[in-house]
Amino acid sequence: MSLIDEIKFNEAGLVPAIAQDATTGRVLMMAWMNAEAVEQTLSTGYAHYYSRSRGKQWQKGETSGHVQKIVDIFLDCDGDTLLLKVDQTGPACHTNRQSCFYRQKENEAWRIIEEPKP
Amino acid sequence: MSLIDEIKFNEAGLVPAIAQDATTGRVLMMAWMNAEAVEQTLSTGYAHYYSRSRGKQWQKGETSGHVQKIVDIFLDCDGDTLLLKVDQTGPACHTNRQSCFYRQKENEAWRIIEEPKP
Repeated sequence: MSLIDEIKFNEAGLVPAIAQDATTGRVLMMAWMNAEAVEQTLSTGYAHYYSRSRGKQWQKGETSGHVQKIVDIFLDCDGDTLLLKVDQTGPACHTNRQSCFYRQKENEAWRIIEEPKP
Repeated sequence: MSLIDEIKFNEAGLVPAIAQDATTGRVLMMAWMNAEAVEQTLSTGYAHYYSRSRGKQWQKGETSGHVQKIVDIFLDCDGDTLLLKVDQTGPACHTNRQSCFYRQKENEAWRIIEEPKP
């Protein structure tokens, strides 16, 4: 039984993958993988995802250079979510912020807690 | 514009929510919320989710007592994923482990790195 056989992909053939900075523990982003992205991630050691909006495979950082080197991979109890601990090169967010989770609830609004890198 | 208005729920009316231990930084679980679960979480200060398998709302810990007190809530750049920093009472996983991510890739297999609490 291979690693991939134990992953439960959803009806669209996808599994959510959470990327966490291996050094700081900060949660950087959540994206989706299909089986091919999992295989590409395992074989290259760098995070690959599947873009639902663009309908294609992508390596994180393929254009920005902001790649994610895999340190550890975890599978959850239900087998339907992956957690990646990564060495993140540059900002993880396409807005040029370290994390995609840069909006924090403050009372009744989302407050931006991180500005894009210059 | 309310907090919920900025959240992009998927075609099933759901948004994934990652729960992270506010103290240790460990990622504990990922579950889904509908708008009602978000409202319940905001109004009570404790994590509520929507169970896709059972088709109903649930408060995390409603039977086990292993509740999640909300410390902070973050929304990602696309508005389609939530990150909860929580004070977790007891184990987060229904298998009685601290985190649902207790299987770690080791070579070509998933190795169990945490045993259930006695």
